[in-house]
Amino acid sequence: MKTITVNRNVLSKNDEIAEKIRGELAAKGIRMINFLGTPGSGKTTVLENVLANPELDKSRIAVIEGDLFTDLDAQRMAEIGIRTIQLNTEGACHLEADMVEKGLAELDLDGIDTIIVDNIGNLVCTAAFQIGAHMRVCVASTTEGNDKPLKYPNMFATADVVLLNKMDLAPYTNFDVDRFVSDVKKLNPNVEIHLCTAYKNEGLEPVVKLFANK
Amino acid sequence: MKTITVNRNVLSKNDEIAEKIRGELAAKGIRMINFLGTPGSGKTTVLENVLANPELDKSRIAVIEGDLFTDLDAQRMAEIGIRTIQLNTEGACHLEADMVEKGLAELDLDGIDTIIVDNIGNLVCTAAFQIGAHMRVCVASTTEGNDKPLKYPNMFATADVVLLNKMDLAPYTNFDVDRFVSDVKKLNPNVEIHLCTAYKNEGLEPVVKLFANK
Repeated sequence: MKTITVNRNVLSKNDEIAEKIRGELAAKGIRMINFLGTPGSGKTTVLENVLANPELDKSRIAVIEGDLFTDLDAQRMAEIGIRTIQLNTEGACHLEADMVEKGLAELDLDGIDTIIVDNIGNLVCTAAFQIGAHMRVCVASTTEGNDKPLKYPNMFATADVVLLNKMDLAPYTNFDVDRFVSDVKKLNPNVEIHLCTAYKNEGLEPVVKLFANK
Repeated sequence: MKTITVNRNVLSKNDEIAEKIRGELAAKGIRMINFLGTPGSGKTTVLENVLANPELDKSRIAVIEGDLFTDLDAQRMAEIGIRTIQLNTEGACHLEADMVEKGLAELDLDGIDTIIVDNIGNLVCTAAFQIGAHMRVCVASTTEGNDKPLKYPNMFATADVVLLNKMDLAPYTNFDVDRFVSDVKKLNPNVEIHLCTAYKNEGLEPVVKLFANK
């Protein structure tokens, strides 16, 4: 199983860089939040609606967008007036600490106290790779089926906050919200779970509060 | 960018094994179909409903289930009486050719002419890693948003068949089916695209036909 060994070496080097980033940002009074979830779970739509909220001072928040090739998501952030850097992994399925380090070097951090990293859509490697963040938010959705916490336990076990998105579609699916909450809590008893419908800007108050509080 | 270099070495060795598998299966008159898509797109639900169709001779079809840790999907296949092997990647985000080779060695291939590999939910690495299959089917869904073909082009460019699932939910989303079809066709002019609602067993006839025809 060569790849797994290789990944372990990469992970150990990666974690060193992540630790350095985490410390340096903390010393500057900046916290970094890693936004994770499956492709299409609604990560960027959550950010779009939360960051457009007038309660938030947009001049203190920056976004690092991760994507394989495009800058579609960075365009969405730029439209709402958020300072944004696009990282393109050119095919890699997750952000790594050295990529984030390069992004941070190009980002004007003057006046910034919160950086949000909108990671690649992936439930596996994005959870395995530290990027130097101080907190993880996982966006899941009711259209993904109930088996995801059990099938991708590391993602849900390491999240500080889980947002269950697309609550408007839940009545048209066989998704069981109570079971999802209970499965996530079994993996991660201290996690905060919030239900929302991001594109309708419903249920996003806890995320606004999270970004507003320093 | 160490990981990318590492991945290239792994990919080249992987492709050799994949080529060997592809040739050996073809020599035995067996074709292998790689089922791909994002977590929760409905890959296993498509397979469940198609394989339960009485038009298909279940004794000639076997399934290799890929998952990180659980055997939830293999249990679903076993319930409908399909010969199944579960591969657990123990954290890796995609199947590789050597894992599939091990699965094939344990699978009783007597009378089998079609093997379906239900890959890990992932739009990136599963498309990058050959596993020795003769055909790729990508399951996408209307709840994932319209940007997926542009954001994950390799997945859609290398698929022989794209199933657009969860058509029943399309009216409750802002998903534009025509735009999806047009974006996929731009990346892959020869691809077959079919619309379906897998859990209602609607629109799956083309997949039944695909599995029935040798």
